[in-house]
This record gives sequence, structure tokens and C-alpha cells, in this order.
Amino acid sequence: MKVGIIGASGYTGAELTRILSRHSEVELTVVTSRQYAGKPLSEVYPHLGGISELFCENVDTDELVQRADLFFTAVPHQTAMEIVPQLLDAGKKVVDLSADFRIRRADVYEKWYQIHTAPHLLEEAVYGLPELYRDKVKGARLVANPGCYPTSVILALAPLLRQGVIDPTTIIIDSKSGTSGAGRGAAVGSLFCEVADGFRAYKVGEHRHTPEIEQELSGLAGKDLTVSFTPHLLPMSRGILSTVYAQLDKPVRPEDVYDVYRDAYQDEPFVRVCNPGVFPATQYVRGSNFCDVSFKVDTRTGRIVVVSVIDNLVKGAAGQAVQNMNLLCGFEETMGLLGVPVFP
Amino acid sequence: MKVGIIGASGYTGAELTRILSRHSEVELTVVTSRQYAGKPLSEVYPHLGGISELFCENVDTDELVQRADLFFTAVPHQTAMEIVPQLLDAGKKVVDLSADFRIRRADVYEKWYQIHTAPHLLEEAVYGLPELYRDKVKGARLVANPGCYPTSVILALAPLLRQGVIDPTTIIIDSKSGTSGAGRGAAVGSLFCEVADGFRAYKVGEHRHTPEIEQELSGLAGKDLTVSFTPHLLPMSRGILSTVYAQLDKPVRPEDVYDVYRDAYQDEPFVRVCNPGVFPATQYVRGSNFCDVSFKVDTRTGRIVVVSVIDNLVKGAAGQAVQNMNLLCGFEETMGLLGVPVFP
Amino acid sequence: MKVGIIGASGYTGAELTRILSRHSEVELTVVTSRQYAGKPLSEVYPHLGGISELFCENVDTDELVQRADLFFTAVPHQTAMEIVPQLLDAGKKVVDLSADFRIRRADVYEKWYQIHTAPHLLEEAVYGLPELYRDKVKGARLVANPGCYPTSVILALAPLLRQGVIDPTTIIIDSKSGTSGAGRGAAVGSLFCEVADGFRAYKVGEHRHTPEIEQELSGLAGKDLTVSFTPHLLPMSRGILSTVYAQLDKPVRPEDVYDVYRDAYQDEPFVRVCNPGVFPATQYVRGSNFCDVSFKVDTRTGRIVVVSVIDNLVKGAAGQAVQNMNLLCGFEETMGLLGVPVFP
Amino acid sequence: MKVGIIGASGYTGAELTRILSRHSEVELTVVTSRQYAGKPLSEVYPHLGGISELFCENVDTDELVQRADLFFTAVPHQTAMEIVPQLLDAGKKVVDLSADFRIRRADVYEKWYQIHTAPHLLEEAVYGLPELYRDKVKGARLVANPGCYPTSVILALAPLLRQGVIDPTTIIIDSKSGTSGAGRGAAVGSLFCEVADGFRAYKVGEHRHTPEIEQELSGLAGKDLTVSFTPHLLPMSRGILSTVYAQLDKPVRPEDVYDVYRDAYQDEPFVRVCNPGVFPATQYVRGSNFCDVSFKVDTRTGRIVVVSVIDNLVKGAAGQAVQNMNLLCGFEETMGLLGVPVFP
Repeated sequence: MKVGIIGASGYTGAELTRILSRHSEVELTVVTSRQYAGKPLSEVYPHLGGISELFCENVDTDELVQRADLFFTAVPHQTAMEIVPQLLDAGKKVVDLSADFRIRRADVYEKWYQIHTAPHLLEEAVYGLPELYRDKVKGARLVANPGCYPTSVILALAPLLRQGVIDPTTIIIDSKSGTSGAGRGAAVGSLFCEVADGFRAYKVGEHRHTPEIEQELSGLAGKDLTVSFTPHLLPMSRGILSTVYAQLDKPVRPEDVYDVYRDAYQDEPFVRVCNPGVFPATQYVRGSNFCDVSFKVDTRTGRIVVVSVIDNLVKGAAGQAVQNMNLLCGFEETMGLLGVPVFP
Repeated sequence: MKVGIIGASGYTGAELTRILSRHSEVELTVVTSRQYAGKPLSEVYPHLGGISELFCENVDTDELVQRADLFFTAVPHQTAMEIVPQLLDAGKKVVDLSADFRIRRADVYEKWYQIHTAPHLLEEAVYGLPELYRDKVKGARLVANPGCYPTSVILALAPLLRQGVIDPTTIIIDSKSGTSGAGRGAAVGSLFCEVADGFRAYKVGEHRHTPEIEQELSGLAGKDLTVSFTPHLLPMSRGILSTVYAQLDKPVRPEDVYDVYRDAYQDEPFVRVCNPGVFPATQYVRGSNFCDVSFKVDTRTGRIVVVSVIDNLVKGAAGQAVQNMNLLCGFEETMGLLGVPVFP
Repeated sequence: MKVGIIGASGYTGAELTRILSRHSEVELTVVTSRQYAGKPLSEVYPHLGGISELFCENVDTDELVQRADLFFTAVPHQTAMEIVPQLLDAGKKVVDLSADFRIRRADVYEKWYQIHTAPHLLEEAVYGLPELYRDKVKGARLVANPGCYPTSVILALAPLLRQGVIDPTTIIIDSKSGTSGAGRGAAVGSLFCEVADGFRAYKVGEHRHTPEIEQELSGLAGKDLTVSFTPHLLPMSRGILSTVYAQLDKPVRPEDVYDVYRDAYQDEPFVRVCNPGVFPATQYVRGSNFCDVSFKVDTRTGRIVVVSVIDNLVKGAAGQAVQNMNLLCGFEETMGLLGVPVFP
Repeated sequence: MKVGIIGASGYTGAELTRILSRHSEVELTVVTSRQYAGKPLSEVYPHLGGISELFCENVDTDELVQRADLFFTAVPHQTAMEIVPQLLDAGKKVVDLSADFRIRRADVYEKWYQIHTAPHLLEEAVYGLPELYRDKVKGARLVANPGCYPTSVILALAPLLRQGVIDPTTIIIDSKSGTSGAGRGAAVGSLFCEVADGFRAYKVGEHRHTPEIEQELSGLAGKDLTVSFTPHLLPMSRGILSTVYAQLDKPVRPEDVYDVYRDAYQDEPFVRVCNPGVFPATQYVRGSNFCDVSFKVDTRTGRIVVVSVIDNLVKGAAGQAVQNMNLLCGFEETMGLLGVPVFP
């Protein structure tokens, strides 16, 4: 099957290329980039030397749709909502990595982002978290690939919310992300000297992943929720760790909570529940599609603390997008995604 | 005045030496280290070459007390409680950087640490957070220098608790520390390859700084509190950032909260309240005795989020210890501590 | 085919496990570690959770040889020379990652290391740099896997020495390595705080990889050489970059030197010659078996500067070992080694 | 005395502000920045909060000269040569941190940079390396502050060249710099994700510090030299380490070379010669004005290897500029520069 990447010059586009280059069922036929049009992708990303022979192109959608059957749109929000309808109209499948089709309600989207110009697609778009929506993804035309923070948070909380272990009105999410989440744009705030050997919070209480998190957690809880969400910037390239706090609904035994997680994830190929008492670390999922999760029942405070980690560029973006493609196309779900974490 | 450092070979001891070497009123006359006895300190810490001519010594307390008037004890807890009484009995002043005299109630100490062999000193020891206990420190014989995490947390919350802005039963503390907090001991978990490019939580709900935090926050709130406290390990050497969450007691305007902080800290030489909307970062206090603090009133959730940063080796340890020494000895409080943060 | 790793708890052992776990022709059946005997490998290395179910074992060679057909010995030098003869006597194939069988002359080995107790194997052992000795490796019983620094240096210089482009008596090698090269032993010098945000030279003119480099360069030059070799420690986990200087034998055109490299390496699956004017970087080979190489003809000084990069744990250790195993066993040379570099 | 910084928004400008804020004899009265005009410097550099109350200004030279007696010009080359003559004409003293007045011969400057529009000042300008030109600096109007790489290299080699220990035609310089040397400009190549966990050479054989190094080494050797110079980019913010190779002129004993260095530097306040066998590391000079230097006599190859380290922003830029100001103004040479290295 022929696939294309629209917006290939960002870190997510490069990561998609890395993964797809070793996928046995698809051929990457076209990668677009306005900024680098005409350049070999392996010049823009030297690590892809000898891996990909493709050149960055700047072509319009009419031509694009001749070149592949499925597209990954790795462009900024607002740009995605212009391109995706054209791709669908041409009969193509789309895995969209922007935020444009993740929020089901246009009014909510518009409150956090801006006007939505393709609201008719919101109902059709499937939120591409396979652990929650595997069956829906299989039949979809348009998959909205989840945000990186929401992936780490939803996988951390889904089992607890489904089983009613926690009071959903008390959820506090403290997340920390590597710098690749800020993209490859040349900004002073992303310079090595500004980020290295330092740590900060940003967009406290205002990050745009908040409504996405609330939408999915509300669905799991069966009622509308608001959550506190604070993202932080880590002095490293890859990895997200979310520490999530909630009041326990009633006293629970840790071993019962462990069973809740194990039951939820034992058949999931990409979620690893840590042994009791062991907590995950981002370096143990680096470069892989794994989400590792663990928890602590704190009887002193009546709270539970859940910790989850992902590689933000893999399970938090490109890897999950390929997982969705696999489901959508009927390939083995893990195809191309069995790379072992790279540690140290 | 002559001062000595007991346990000089750890990072805190080295940082004390760095600061004291430029202090105009004291002379560092003796540094002890069992492990490095007989070696020049500048061999153990090459950055001190040309700064300190001292040799590490392994001498008993009897001799030690001949050599200085005030001692910094930078030894592990349990060791401190053996040495400190002897120093006091010999008429010396002590700033203790261990945990042994921070907890006022022996039973609480013993629950989190082990048997306390000098409980008679607990009442006398002054908790050396100058912003809270400046006057008491001035007259003290024994100052218990606060822990690094507690310093960042208490300075973040003190104004809110004093003014009754928050519901003190809802406090959740998510802290992140640089690796120097783990000390210079040769442990696999502290190796570069284990820490770099990674992030993890540790001792979730079980860290020994918890009772220290609870003691001080309880005092400020006027009632006994338990808090959730989760420490994390950052891939950098210096710096602590604490993100603190609490339910607002009633709706407040951000500008009023800003006034609460400004009023609390405007005369403090080492606390900088960030301008509204600006959040602190650890790299902006690196190498300095500053604590920077800011907050976000989140009307969506009815919570406040406070963020504070310190350099764990300075305001979180050696710098605060010198600040306490200055108070205790009647020197200018800021003497030796005016080093500007080193950025980038 | 069944394979075993002797000494699996170091970073090289973990990297071998990572690579072998995705190799379609071999099964890893036994991993040994004295220190961690009885523990699951995935507890020693949590990134291998869900990848390997093996437990670390401490078994003697008699039992070991029942468990696999080929062994990777990833133990320190001196230990290897005790084990390897037993494995060979039992009819096993061995890829040895220590230094014990790399130096052909026992007297040279003994000058830089210590007494050699299995000198009879030195002639038989094949130096496992496939780009130089592919055919010999194919028929070998015992492959001495090259050192990390030597791999980067020899691949940088081999084409120039073979074509007589440089004066081989003038070679100066300035190498820089990530910290994983120092291993997972708990040493103060390898602590995060000692290495991060810093850079140093070490073992200047005395590093044990010197005779290995000289042996191979001498062979290529056709005469005995001595070289200057200075290793440095980089504040990062993976990667070696070697900057190599030599006097040009006579004036050459850069394009002719480019042809020399291209001719040497165009059929090599793991050596990428950079386009003229482009220099390599360690981050572009991270996690992969590639060696990237480039050069500058400096007419001002009459010298050539060659720069090469590898991942020290892959092409510099575990990856090359698997490449050797593939050759030795008649598998496709690239099998299990097609992982794309992980960037950023 | 009143001083100003022209071009205060770069890392060098910020570092000048840091150092000058604690200098007891000068007052920083004006800082200019076109980009940030109107903003508080402490907003551009939050670490300066509470340290400097100055606002960035964009004023013409006519007004500037009313505001201070001495200026640091921390602007790009080519810009400096426009401003400096005006400052001098107004009777001001200048320490120029650009490259514009470092090269004595206009033709050499123009070969590596571009047309020089103030060549009449080249003879007057004093090359501000106090260890070589202390007396000349004392009487100067215009000091050309040395480049960062040249400072590390010249201090490494000066004693050897003066005493004729090495063959000056064989000098090879392999330098490695932290990323702050690339400045605060928003460039993709300086992003955290591009630099972290990686290492590369750049401008191989073409870096503009080459003629500056050659000019000074030629002066010391007493004849015209060319050198090989390769800069590299380290994944850290501050620090330069230069590894320098040269053929020994004749066999020497290490202890005699040690004496050469000790004799040269024992009265220098900012050069520390390491004990024999000990090599320097950048982390031990971080934040300080020290240059640490050591060497290895390699009898096997007949070469000497010298290693020197500095903090590129201090001894390599702002610190040395203040050292020059002190000399030029008759202050104690070390004033404001006694900050102890910050480690870890």
C-alpha cells in the first residue's frame, strides 16, 4: 500500500519516516514540506541517510491524492482542517496528527483553538487511541491521532475510571515532556542553552490538550469533568511522564488496583503495567511504542498516585499513528512497531 | 570567626566551601571526611583548586572543637545526632544540615527515620527557614537547616496558608529535583547513563521529607495536615521545582493573590515573586540563593497552582545554612550569598 | 540457532539482548550475570520488560555449553581468556567482545594489559571488523570483536592508508566517547553530576585501545606505526566521534579523496560516506549500526582531517558482534541490524 | 566609574551584566539592544531579576557617549567597526568583544571576514590577553578582547613556544565548545533536540578563529605559522576544552615541562596548572575566570599533548573583558572576578 506524509519536516514527520521505512506492508511514496521542497529528506534529517531516497515536495492536494492511498497529516492544527476534507473527498484514508479532529464538539474546539471549518467531520472522526477505540478505528476513514499528553493521561486513568475506583472530580495531572514536543521551529525558548540543565512549567492551566483530556476522561467516567493539568518542559529530547492524583472513592487494597490495571492491559501489546512497587521511567520506553504505567495507593491521604510514561514521538505521535494505520488497513496491529526501547 | 565543616566531601560540603571561601567574616579552618582523610580538598573537588588549601581530616570531636567556633554538620542523619550534642556541650554553635533536628516530635521522627538518641535537643533546635523563623534563628545555638524539598514547598505555600486562601486539606505537591540531591555516593541509579535523557518518580508517597513538610504547613495552617508529596528525578545536576495544587477556600482574584505574595516577600532578600503570568525556571536560580515563586488561579477548577524553584544545593542546603549562620552570628544576612545566578 | 550471552548485565549485554530479541534466525537461550543471578533481566534492565523473559544465571561453563551453539562473551578482559578456550573446546563458536583476542602478538598484549593465558588462540582469532576481514570472519570459530574507538578510527583511515594518500607516520587521533563506554559499574567518576555539563580528556597517550589501533593501521599501511591517541569523555550516553589528522603524502584534490572513500564503502551496508562538505554527527547514528564518515582536505596545512562517528554500543560493540555472528553463521549480514537511527 | 554594554541581549552581554553587577568600582548605566528595546533586561534574562533594574535601550552613539566612560561592545563583527571609532572619538575607552580589532593585518582580516572599514585602529588596538599583554592593556584606549577558542589555545601553548619546547610547524588543535558559543539567535542548529545527546565537528579547517590563533602563536614562536584547527560542538552550555598536539623539538623530561608551565603561570591569578598526571575538565572552571591547563609528554610518539579548559563565556569572553577593564582602569586585576567555579 502506498502512503504519504503531509508535513514531513517536523520531528513527527521524521519519526513517521523512520517507522514506515521498516514496515513490510506499506511503501512511503511522497513526503511534503513547503520549507524544504526540493531537498532530499536525508539532507533535512541526516539520520535518514541510506534509509529514505525521497525528496521533500510541495504539491497541491490534487496531485497528492494520485500518489498514495493513505495519508498522515502532520501539519499544524487549522492547516489540517483544510487538507483533510479534500483527501477524504478523493477517497483516501487519513490519520491526522493535528488537534483538528480530536474534539467532538465544535464549540469546545473553538473555545480552545479557533473557528472550525470542517465541523461536519467531527462526528465521523475516530479518536485513535486503540486501547479505547480499537474497533471503531478498524472501520474508519478518518482517525484523529491523540495528543501526546492525553495519551499518557488517558492510559493512566482509564482502568480506574471504568471501575469507579476514584472520585473523578478530584483529578490533578502533573505532566512533564521532553523538548521534541515543541517541534523543530527555530525559537529562542527551544534553544539548547535555554532548556539544558533547567526545568519549568508552562501554560499552567491553559494548555490546549486540556479539553481533549477532559473529553475522554468524561466519557470514561460517564459524566462531565474538569481537571487540573500542568505541563512542564524537561531538559531531554524524548519522553513524557504524567503524575496523576485523585481521591479514592473508597478504601482499596493495592493488590486489587493492580488487578484492575492488569485486567485492563494484559492483552494490550503496547501497555506494560509495572510490577507492584516499581515505577516507570521515560528512558525505558525511549524510541518505542510502549506506555508503562504504575500506581501508589496512599492510605495516609486517601489518594492514589498514578505514573505513566511514553515516548512522545512514538506512542505520543508517530507510533500510535502507525498503530492506527495498521488497524485501519487490517494489518497486524504491531507491524513496524516492535522496536525495542533504546537504553541507555 | 572560625568555622568548620563536618562531612565536607559531599556536594553540600563542597558548596559550603565554595560559599564560605568568599565570605568576608569567617575563616574555614577545618573540613572533615573519613573517606578522603589526608587528601587536599582541591583534589577531591578540583574546582576548588586555588580556592581552598585545606586538607580533609578525620579527627574526633574533642580535637574538632578546638579548631572552630561554629560547625556545619553535613553528615547523614543518625550520624548528626551523635556529633551535634558533643559540639553543643563544648559551647559551639551548630548549623545541622541533616534531618535529625528538623522534626519537633520524636515520635514522628522515629516513624519516618529511626530511633532518636538526642530527643532532648528537639525542642531547642530552630527550624532554619529564615523567612519563617528569622528571629528565633538569631538567638539559637542549634539550627536545623531545612530539607531541599521542604524549602521549596513551604516558601510556595506559606503566604496562602497564613492568609487562609486555600483549603489546607487539599494540598498536593509534585516536586522535581536535580540529581545532586542524591549525593556523591557511587550508586548505579545515579550514573550518568541511568539518569541522562530520562525522568522518573521515586519514593512515591513515602519520601522522608513528607513529615517535615507537614509539620511546617500544619503550623502555618493552624491545624494538622497530611499532604500528597511525590518527588521526581530530573536529568540535570542542580535545581528543584515544586508544583503545588490546592483547592481555593473561596473565589479569589489573581491580583489579590499576587498582593498576598508581594506583601509576604517584598522585604525578603532571597525570594523573588515573578510578575503575574510569568513562571519561574530552575535555570534562573542556578548557583544562587534565590527562591522564585509564581502561581495561577484556575477558575475552571477552583484550584490554585503554585510553582517555586530553588537551587537545591544553595537555598536548599549550603546557601541557606550560611544565611542561618549569618543570622545566628549577627552578620549581614546576605553576606557571601549575593552570587548572581549562572545562566546559561 | 541458540545463542547465549556471558556477562549480560553490562550495557553491552543489554544491547546484545535488544538486538537479538528481534533477530529472526536466533534464539537467546541463556544470559549470565554473577551480580544479578536469579533476577529477571527485565528487572535489571526495565526497558526489556515484555521483550525478554530470561533470568540472569550464574552457571559454570560445563552447563553453559549445553544451552547454546554460539556465545557472546561480554566480560572484562582477563576473564574472557579463561572462558573462551573452554567454549571452543566444547565445539562452540564465540564472538568475544573483550580485548583478549584482538592483539595478535602476545608480547604487545602483555605490555598494555597483563599476562595472556591463552596465547595459542591469538593466531586463530579473527579481528571482527567485517569491512576489513569479512571473508575471514565467515570461516572463524573465534571472532575478536573490535574495540569501540578502534572501529571508528580504522574505518576512518582504511581507505586513505590503502591508497597511500597520507603519510602514516603523522597520524593523530582525537576521539570523544559517550559515557556508556565506561560501563555500568558504580564509580564516582561516572555519576551524572560528575559527567553532565562537562568534558574532559582521560588516559592521554595511555589508553589500551592504542595498540589495537596501531596493529590494524600498521597492517593497512604495510609498516609499523605509532599514533597519538587521546580519548575524551562526552556528556552523553551513546556515540563516538573520532577526529583524525594526518599529513597528506602529496597534494590531492578533494574529489579524488571522495572517490577513494566512495569506492571503499559503496557496497558496505553500514558505512555511509557523507556528501562533500557535510560532516557527520553522533546523533545521526544513535541506536544504529552505521558508521558515518567525512573528511576535509586542508591545503593551507597540507593535512587531511577525517571525522567518523558510530554508536559505541552498536557498531562499536553489540551491533558489530551480531554482524560478525551473521557472517560466521551464514545469515544475511544485516539481519537484525536494520534499525534506523533514533533522532532526535 | 560608569560603564555601558552595547549589545546586551546576547549571552555575552548577560554575562557581562552578571559580573559587573557585583563589581565594586563600576556602575553599569546603560545596556543597548535593538531587538529588546524598551524591555527590562530582567525580562530578557530572568536570572537577572532583582540584580539589574536596567531597561534595554536603542540609542544612537551620540547619546550613548553621554552615559558612560567605558563601553563593552558585544555586537557582531562588522557592526563593531562602525561603532568603536565613534566611541573613541568621543574620548571613551572601549573593550571590544568582536573580532574586528583582533587581527593586526587588515589583509588577513579581510581574507577571513570582509572589508575592514577602520583599519587605522588595528595598530593601536591591544590584543587583550592579559597573560601576554598585561602592560600594553594598562595604557590602552581600545582593547580587542580575544576569541574564546584562541584564549584556550594560546594559554595552552605560550609557555612551550616561548621556551622552544615544540616544533611550531606541527601544531594541531582539536577544540570542543559548549553551545553558548553559538549565541542566542534562534537557529535550528542550536535547538535543544539538535544538540543534546550528540556531538559534531563544524567549519573544519575553516573557522574564523584560525588567523587569530596563528597570529598570536606566530608571535610567540617568532615565525609565521599555520595550524590545523578543528572546532566541535559539545552537548552542554558552557566550556571549551582544547587538545593541542605538537612534535617535541627534542626529548624532554615531563618534570622540566612542568617547570616551564609553573614558571610561566605561577603569578597568574587566573591560570591553574594541574598537578602532574592530572587533566582538567570544563566543569571545574564553570562560571569562573579560570583557565586550567595540563600536558602529557608522549615519548612513544615524540609528541606533547596539551589540554586546556576555560568557561567560554567568562575567561573566553565577559570575564576576560572585565579583567581587561580592570587593567585599563587601574583597578585590582581580579576585581569582580573571584567567583568560585560552580560544580556540580
